[in-house]
Amino acid sequence: MTPDLTIVKIGGKVTEDGRLLASFLTEFSRLEGNKILVHGGGKTAGRVMEKMGIEPKMINGRRITDLESLDVVTMVYAGLINKKIVAGLQNNQCNAMGLTGADLDSITAEKRKVKDIDYGYAGDITKVNSGVISNFLHQGIVPVFCSITHGAGGQLLNTNADTIASTLAKSMTSEGYRVKLLLCFELEGVLKHQDNEEIYSTISTEEYKKGVENGQLAEGIIPKLQNAFEAIKNGVSEVRILNVQKINDPVAGTLIKSGI
Amino acid sequence: MTPDLTIVKIGGKVTEDGRLLASFLTEFSRLEGNKILVHGGGKTAGRVMEKMGIEPKMINGRRITDLESLDVVTMVYAGLINKKIVAGLQNNQCNAMGLTGADLDSITAEKRKVKDIDYGYAGDITKVNSGVISNFLHQGIVPVFCSITHGAGGQLLNTNADTIASTLAKSMTSEGYRVKLLLCFELEGVLKHQDNEEIYSTISTEEYKKGVENGQLAEGIIPKLQNAFEAIKNGVSEVRILNVQKINDPVAGTLIKSGI
Repeated sequence: MTPDLTIVKIGGKVTEDGRLLASFLTEFSRLEGNKILVHGGGKTAGRVMEKMGIEPKMINGRRITDLESLDVVTMVYAGLINKKIVAGLQNNQCNAMGLTGADLDSITAEKRKVKDIDYGYAGDITKVNSGVISNFLHQGIVPVFCSITHGAGGQLLNTNADTIASTLAKSMTSEGYRVKLLLCFELEGVLKHQDNEEIYSTISTEEYKKGVENGQLAEGIIPKLQNAFEAIKNGVSEVRILNVQKINDPVAGTLIKSGI
Repeated sequence: MTPDLTIVKIGGKVTEDGRLLASFLTEFSRLEGNKILVHGGGKTAGRVMEKMGIEPKMINGRRITDLESLDVVTMVYAGLINKKIVAGLQNNQCNAMGLTGADLDSITAEKRKVKDIDYGYAGDITKVNSGVISNFLHQGIVPVFCSITHGAGGQLLNTNADTIASTLAKSMTSEGYRVKLLLCFELEGVLKHQDNEEIYSTISTEEYKKGVENGQLAEGIIPKLQNAFEAIKNGVSEVRILNVQKINDPVAGTLIKSGI
């Protein structure tokens, strides 16, 4: 029998809000079967940088990870947020284990190549050590990944959490899992129009293309949907974009799967 | 055959100095057999607190861990320092895995009881899950513990790194290991007098008591030695207090073992 695996990704708005995070962790602990949690934490990192008097470096509106910012995201993602989540899950009898890509060499990346922009210490994933992760799952351990990987020469690298989640999802299919990916945020799903709250219950690549063309799909949702379609193309059985408080609702949010 | 286990503890001066840390990690990677690394990071935490404009809380010269300071030590110990060490070890082909006590519920503590002083979120260890740690060692994994534990209600707690190292050492004897504990610092060993560099090659409890009485043993070394004698009394085969650059020198530093 093919074992199931649910990979849940949460963003910075959830991890920044203590009560919302606590209620999410209770829900996550109730999820049955093999599971992995992936989190970011950009909002908290921004707040800490501000307190430390570090100016965020931006080029053409894109955030650049210089060495100083890398230290902050490493502290905030791998330290503060990851360990609060792990301790909160343990308190819900969920046997969590916090990880960066450096731990057990679980996710390797390479420093993003400089083309027009030098993104600094941003990492593009080159390899997921899916055997190590599968080994954890076999032992009933729940891996909690933050969005830090590592590259050549022992260099830590800042890597997008959505990308980590979808790359993990794709890689774990090669270990024989039937993988479901839940991309959580504060909205109910993919909005049909930017000016009301109606959501797609499912979205096809055609609807996606049309939505991008006519400008109805909001900017922030586009990379999430790209990640989702990419995951489905690579063997992930379904992706759901949904409200962070509804992970145990089997019909919540917007469903993306092949053949719809 | 009884398997050997070496537990190495390093302090804040090493983790703060990039070159010294890199050279230590190379040496640590060369250590043969089962091994565990334990680290603090108080100096870096102090620096980050200063940058964030957080005043260290002190009562009678003792540092108090309020919630704000707990966030900083969690960021610095479990995030910044722990992950730099893990990535550095991976770069030396040492299969490291960073841990707090919350991860896999490996070390449980209780919030220190308020007697004369309220130490805040300081944790006194109540249980080491030695089976989990032994399971890692059997898989050739090198656990790297930072000095954060967890207690009731998912609360993270700040715990002294020397105490974590010696408590781990005692607990792992119950898993059938012959445990050696290396307490590293910037000096060559336990100084015989505070005014020159001559060190004890070994130190007995009698010499220790005499040194405390006549004031020749410096203040900072006393808790280290207490930890060492306590470990020996509880089945640890030997403790060595030595220079951080000499962990592969079998006669470096000051040796504490039973019967000397």
